[in-house]
This record gives sequence, C-alpha cells and structure tokens, in this order.
Amino acid sequence: MDAVKWKTGITKVEPNKIVTRGYPQDELIGNVPFSHVVFLLMKGEMPSESEGKMMDAILTACVDHGVTPPSSQASRVVASGGVPMPTAIAAGLMSIGDFHGGAIEKGALFLQDGVKRMKDEGKSAEKMASILVKESKEKGKRILGFGHRIHTDDPRTKKLLLLAEELGIAKEHVALSRAIAVELEKTLGKKLPINVDGCVAALISDMGFDWRLGKAFFVIGRTAGLTAQVYEEISREKPMRRMWSADVEYDGP
Amino acid sequence: MDAVKWKTGITKVEPNKIVTRGYPQDELIGNVPFSHVVFLLMKGEMPSESEGKMMDAILTACVDHGVTPPSSQASRVVASGGVPMPTAIAAGLMSIGDFHGGAIEKGALFLQDGVKRMKDEGKSAEKMASILVKESKEKGKRILGFGHRIHTDDPRTKKLLLLAEELGIAKEHVALSRAIAVELEKTLGKKLPINVDGCVAALISDMGFDWRLGKAFFVIGRTAGLTAQVYEEISREKPMRRMWSADVEYDGP
Amino acid sequence: MDAVKWKTGITKVEPNKIVTRGYPQDELIGNVPFSHVVFLLMKGEMPSESEGKMMDAILTACVDHGVTPPSSQASRVVASGGVPMPTAIAAGLMSIGDFHGGAIEKGALFLQDGVKRMKDEGKSAEKMASILVKESKEKGKRILGFGHRIHTDDPRTKKLLLLAEELGIAKEHVALSRAIAVELEKTLGKKLPINVDGCVAALISDMGFDWRLGKAFFVIGRTAGLTAQVYEEISREKPMRRMWSADVEYDGP
Amino acid sequence: MDAVKWKTGITKVEPNKIVTRGYPQDELIGNVPFSHVVFLLMKGEMPSESEGKMMDAILTACVDHGVTPPSSQASRVVASGGVPMPTAIAAGLMSIGDFHGGAIEKGALFLQDGVKRMKDEGKSAEKMASILVKESKEKGKRILGFGHRIHTDDPRTKKLLLLAEELGIAKEHVALSRAIAVELEKTLGKKLPINVDGCVAALISDMGFDWRLGKAFFVIGRTAGLTAQVYEEISREKPMRRMWSADVEYDGP
Repeated sequence: MDAVKWKTGITKVEPNKIVTRGYPQDELIGNVPFSHVVFLLMKGEMPSESEGKMMDAILTACVDHGVTPPSSQASRVVASGGVPMPTAIAAGLMSIGDFHGGAIEKGALFLQDGVKRMKDEGKSAEKMASILVKESKEKGKRILGFGHRIHTDDPRTKKLLLLAEELGIAKEHVALSRAIAVELEKTLGKKLPINVDGCVAALISDMGFDWRLGKAFFVIGRTAGLTAQVYEEISREKPMRRMWSADVEYDGP
Repeated sequence: MDAVKWKTGITKVEPNKIVTRGYPQDELIGNVPFSHVVFLLMKGEMPSESEGKMMDAILTACVDHGVTPPSSQASRVVASGGVPMPTAIAAGLMSIGDFHGGAIEKGALFLQDGVKRMKDEGKSAEKMASILVKESKEKGKRILGFGHRIHTDDPRTKKLLLLAEELGIAKEHVALSRAIAVELEKTLGKKLPINVDGCVAALISDMGFDWRLGKAFFVIGRTAGLTAQVYEEISREKPMRRMWSADVEYDGP
Repeated sequence: MDAVKWKTGITKVEPNKIVTRGYPQDELIGNVPFSHVVFLLMKGEMPSESEGKMMDAILTACVDHGVTPPSSQASRVVASGGVPMPTAIAAGLMSIGDFHGGAIEKGALFLQDGVKRMKDEGKSAEKMASILVKESKEKGKRILGFGHRIHTDDPRTKKLLLLAEELGIAKEHVALSRAIAVELEKTLGKKLPINVDGCVAALISDMGFDWRLGKAFFVIGRTAGLTAQVYEEISREKPMRRMWSADVEYDGP
Repeated sequence: MDAVKWKTGITKVEPNKIVTRGYPQDELIGNVPFSHVVFLLMKGEMPSESEGKMMDAILTACVDHGVTPPSSQASRVVASGGVPMPTAIAAGLMSIGDFHGGAIEKGALFLQDGVKRMKDEGKSAEKMASILVKESKEKGKRILGFGHRIHTDDPRTKKLLLLAEELGIAKEHVALSRAIAVELEKTLGKKLPINVDGCVAALISDMGFDWRLGKAFFVIGRTAGLTAQVYEEISREKPMRRMWSADVEYDGP
C-alpha cells in the first residue's frame, strides 16, 4: 500500500528538536506567555503586545460561569460515574454547540459577512445594522450574540469592550456589533445588549480570525473552568451522588 | 421532591456579577494573564510571580507534539467525519489516559509518596531514589516519567528544569526525580532521562498540586494544540480523506 | 428554589418496578429480542414481526466496516492511550457526523420531503426523481446516499432492499430512492447506486421514523463493531503503538 | 517510511464483499438477530440458541433506567447544548465508569478469580463465598455487584437469573454469586441481593466472556436508551432549558 502523503504547518518533531509555527518550543517555554502560544497556534503568527493582552482577556472571559451551564453539569455528572479526568472534561466540552457558545461561531460569521457588505456597498455601521436587523426580522431569525438569561449588563462584556478600545483592537466588527445593539433596542423597545459570546465574536473578527475558530476560544478558556469543576466534584463529593433534582413525571403508555 | 443542596468554591454567579475564587471576573479580565487564572482555578489562590511564570512554561511545554500522538490522530479523524469543532477537540482529549500523559498523574503520586517517605524516614533524595529503583525492580514495575520514544535529551524538559531552578520552584520533588534518573542510569547501564511528563509531575508536585490534577495540565495545554490540528484538518483537507495507511491483514475465520 | 418540572415517556422507575414505554422490563427480558426493544425505545411502540425483522437487518448492516472508517480509527487510537472501554467506544461514535453516516440523517430528510411533494403534487416517483436530480444539479448540490468509495454493488444494500420487498416494508421512500438512482445514471452516464446509508435512510423513512433519528441506527449498530475494535486493540496490541503511517511534511515557517 | 503492519480478526472489506468473523455480512443481514451478531463480534463465534436468548435478555436488562442515572443526565444536558445526536449519546456513554456500570467489569473479574480459586483449591461455592466475604471485610473492601439504591428485589435480576437457569446458562459464576449474597446477608444481618450489574457480571462469566468486556454489554444496551433520551430532549424540550435544580451555595473566598 502506498504511503499517504500530507503536510502540516503546526509542529515539526525531530529527535531532541520540536518546532511549532517556526519557533523551537524550548524558546517559547519560559519566554512567551501561554496565551500568546495559543494565539500562535490558532493564527500561525505571534501576537503583537496588544493582541496578546486581548487574547488573555478573551480566554479569561470564557473561563467559568458556575455550576449551571450545560458544560459544567455534563463534566460533573460524567466525573461522578468514576472516569479519568480528561474524559469528564471532554464531556463538558462536547456540550458546546449551537446553543451553548454557538453564538461565537455563528455571530462571527454574521459580523464578518456584515462588515464585508459594509465595505463592498460603502455603508456605515449604523446603516448596515439597520439593514441587518430588518432582514433578520423579515426572515424571522434571531441575530445571535445579544441578550443574556441572567445578566442585563454583563461585567465581562463591559470590560472586554473597554479593553479593546484602549488596546486599539476594536474596529469595524465591534462597531457593527454596537450599532446592531442600538438598532435592536430601537426596534424591540427594550435593551438587548451584546452578550459575552457576541462580544468575543466581534473581537476575534477584528483580530482577523476565521469565524470557524469561534467556539475554540470558548473551548480553550472553559477547559480551565471545567478542570476546576471536575476536581471539586471528585475531591468534595461522593461518587454517583444525586446531584440535581427535578419533578419528573412519566407520561408514557 | 426536596432540593439537593451543595456547595461550590469556584464561581458565584449573580445578575451582572461573576466572582471566581474571590475575584470579580471583570477585575481578572485585562489585568491577569490567562495562565494565572488557570492556576487560580486549579489551586484556589493566585500564583506568585514565579509560580505564574512556571505555569506559563508548563502549559506551553504540553501544547503540541505534531500529528502522530493519539490525541492529534483522534481529533483529526473525528473532525474528518464532519462534526463540531468542540466534539473533535474532545475526542483528542479522551485519548489522554494511562499511556498518553498518564505518567504526569501517576508520576506525581509516586514522587509525592517518595518525598513523604524521605521526610518521614529522614532520608536524602539519593538514598530514597536508590530504594525506590530497587523496589520497582523487585516488583517488576517501571517507574513512570523517564525515557522517551523519540527524544534522548528532550528540549522541553531541559528548559523547564532550568527555569524551575532560576525561579526557585524546584524543590524536593525535582531533586528526587533527578536522583531517580541517576539511579536508573546506574542500574540499567544506559541513560533514561526525565521525560516531559515526569518533569511536569515533579514541578506541579513542588508547586503543591494534588497529583489527581496531573493530567489536567496536559489537557489544558494540549487543547490549544488540538484546536490547531482540527482547524488545519478542516481548512486544508477533504472530509473523510484516507488519512493514514497500514498493511492490514484479516486473520479471522 | 422551585423544583424543575418535566415529563418523560421513556421509563418509569419505582422500587422493584421498571416500566419502559408501557412494558415492565422484566416482561421484555427473555421474551422480546433486543432489536425489538430498540425499536420500542426509538418509536414508542412495539414493532410488527416484519418491522422487527427489518430492524435486525438494519442494525446488522451498520455493524462494522473494518479498521479504516473514522469511527474505528478514533476508537482504536483513543483505546491505545489507556482509557476505559466506554470512553474509547464513545470517541468512535463522535466521528459519526455530516460525512460519516451523515447521509442517513440528511438522506432521510431529503426523501421525506420528496415523498411529501410527490403526494402533495400527485407525482410519480420517477417524475419526482427527475425533478429532484435537476434541482440538485442547478444548485450544485450532491444528493446524499448514492455511490460508495469501495463498493459498486454493496452487498448490504442489495440484501436490505431484497428483504424490505419480501417483508412489505419497502414503500414510497424506497421507490423514490430507486428512481433517483436510475435518474442519476441517466444524467451522469455512470452508475451511482444507492449506498448503505441511503438505503437505511429510505427504509427508516418507510417505517415512519423521524429523519432526526437517522444517525442513531448507525450509532446503535456500530457500537457493537466498535466494541470489537477496542477489545481487539487492547487484547492484541501494545499501548501507544504506532498504528498508522503517513509521510508527513512540515510546511510551516 | 515503512508501512505499519497489523492484523485484525474482525472484518475483511473488499470491493462488494464484507466478511465479519468469517460470515459474509449479507448472509447475516436478514438471517441472524442483531443480538447474535453482537455476540459474534464480541466472542468471535456465533452463539448457540440459548446463548443468543441470554444475550437478548442481558442487553435488554441494560437498556434504560429513567432520566436520573449519570448517563441519561449527561446525554440530555449535552444534547441541550445543540450538538449532533452521536455526540450527545457518546457523552452519556462516557459516564460509564468505576461507579456507573463499573461493577460489571470488576465484578466479573472478582467472580472469575473466585471460580478459578474454587477449582484450584477444590472448594464449594459456599466455602469460597465465605472466604471471599471474610477477606473483603478484612481489607475493608466492598464486594461489587450487590445491593441497589432503589430496588430491594430488582425485577431485572430476578428475571435474568430465572432465564439463565431455564437456558442452562447459569453455572459456577452464578452459583458463587448467589453464595456470596447468602454469606453477605449472614454477615451483615440484612439482605444485600445481587444487583443487575452483579448479575450481568456472573452471566457473562458463565458464558465465557473476558471480564474486560464487562462494561461493553452495558454500553451496547444503554446506547438504545440514550438514543431515546436524546431524541425526547430535542423533540420535546427547548434548548439550554434549566433541566435540573439544586440549592447551590458559594463557599469560596
């Protein structure tokens, strides 16, 4: 059978030599913050100082949101069955889908398409926001990345946007995102502010990331939180404990 | 049904307020490197500057080792089936077990037990290493964390240990680990140096982490590498491609 | 906190009494073949004798396709890291996505839409097939469930269709599927026969299953094959062995 | 790079020909119940009629236990994040570990060791049970597979054992298991009957299966139940709903 041939631009491994994206790993270790290495892996190039700071902020904003999100529940419940820690962490990550963290991926695609149209058609962010909100209404489709079940003024979003302005990261995608929030409030008659997923979607778009990487920022940040969730479960609780309750009624035959 | 009651020390979520390990998340965002937040989540307290630097180094040393480790292969192959990115990343993490990254967990337990015995019995690292190597030989059990399939002088290990000495992180567990390597060479007549798993095991033990968290350092670091592997697979390759080859012979009935 | 309330029609559990879909489990055990219980769980009602036989056949047709499909590779590779058997089996199932088994889900949706249009518009299967193939060509979209990388005349498909005719299971969806294959051959000038995914899609549609359950038939059948793959890996092979080979070239910076 | 060479006894795939464990798949399809094919895959040979019936019974006994086991919760919660059905089913399977279904694997090992000692030492099941219970007490270790949180007289166990006697499947491992239950009652002064995990452990041991396959019976049976759980979740409930409740108190800094 002929050998399969393929190419990778991530890491070259030779005896006693490991080169990642052009950098020997032993030069990265101890010299470069982990967040910069994450950026390097995802983008293929080292971040500027501002980009590196933004990366730290984005990953931190995704880190943990308590025990109730599907990811925490899945990790805890799987851990309680008595499995290796990586299996339990993985179960939590698997819940990151269209409805849990999905707005980063789809939101980024939506904003990147929107900004492209802004440029192609020579329109302002405000004008484009008005068009997009109208179109979404007509199609009966929600614009993802706005509004939160618990927070009306999410502290993570506020801080991320502030920082993005300070660092000069915020550009057209953040502008369009802000304009959409204004337009949604006008149309709906109530505030529907940018949520943390929508905010990350705008920021990574302004940093030039492919929208298909959207969920990965959440995955990488949240892995740290899920580690803590799993560790707390196995170190403080009994296996197979009754973890949650619900009044469940059987309505089958 | 009576409500289940339980306690968590990780994150408190209230409307417009998120507090993790005592720190409002909006004070962490933009002020603290992600690696320090990871430390905070795993340990329950903020790292010192040295510990923070060591954490960056450890996570970076776990980041990626090319396309051949089980984790990369699993993530690539699952991605090629056409699934969400988090599912593909999770599949890679699930391969982290007794034989892939497992030496961090078991190695840390072994070293922590060894250092406890050193202190209880008032023995030096050299004496304890000699006892441990002898015991392992008698039981026919390998000591985990020494030797590597590819590297005889792993650049990651060398750099991590150098840094740990500079930062004052290296203490008894690193000392015992070094003494075991010396003892193994004496006994086996060939070098079997500390590998990257064994090195991380010693370092996190010297930083006071529970051995049960051993694999989590690998998981968190490697999540970044697997993200790159999955992204490269979906952006450069065709779905369901023949990815690897082997001469497979059917020897069934 | 007020208790969450919800309903389930699957299983009622009381001390010493377990009722699934209306049947006490101890009356199912020993009296009903497993395949019928699978049908009962998925459909909410017991199969007729013909449906039960068809179910056995469908699950058997999904059972295993050697070591090369992504699911086998993922399960083998994850097993080789040294993890519990269920984790390794799960990793294989996770590769079942848009491109691996996905044609069952999307193919069933396509056929169910097609048959609905046939009935609504009073068209024959042949007429509808001609319309659908034309539409797909115009949209530049492949119709899923036809053609196979290895088999030109898949023995599983042939047998499943034969059996479906004998049992009186084959109805409009199989008819439309056959008509599409004929139409595709006419249009493309070469045979593109119904493949096993497309065949299962047609059969479960004729049995009245929701298309969203499409991948589940593959999952349930393949779980048995993946069990054998994982067991063979751990009982015949060394951990972390080099399982596959490829000529990998680093083309990064 | 030289090709990796390896052997498999599971399935041979050639164009238009698929042979599993020596049987062309198109001869299995429609002729052999799925449960027998599962047996064939796991054991390498076709079951006798009795073994086939027992296999159906064992898989059915593992099928579902309502919404509260970790596997159901994990599958439901992951499904609610908006992911493909196989990912959600896999998450449930991943919770099958030392404490959830684990007694099948460890229980089978314990019984197989026990029966070996019975034969080697020429002891009766009663004598061996008395020794094993005494040893376990001395080591402070629970014997797995006895007692249940909800059922004092599990209807699945009762039916499985009855059937095993009728079919002539029950042999030394069931005998030892029964003797242990008697001995446990004598020692503890209360009933601790064989539970469904312990029962499956005994039955698969009497059928000659490797204990390492223990969890696989549970995995294969439960995959059907988890499919129903996931389907009910996505077809009857809203995404990201609050699924379970608990009084959670933050006791961190």
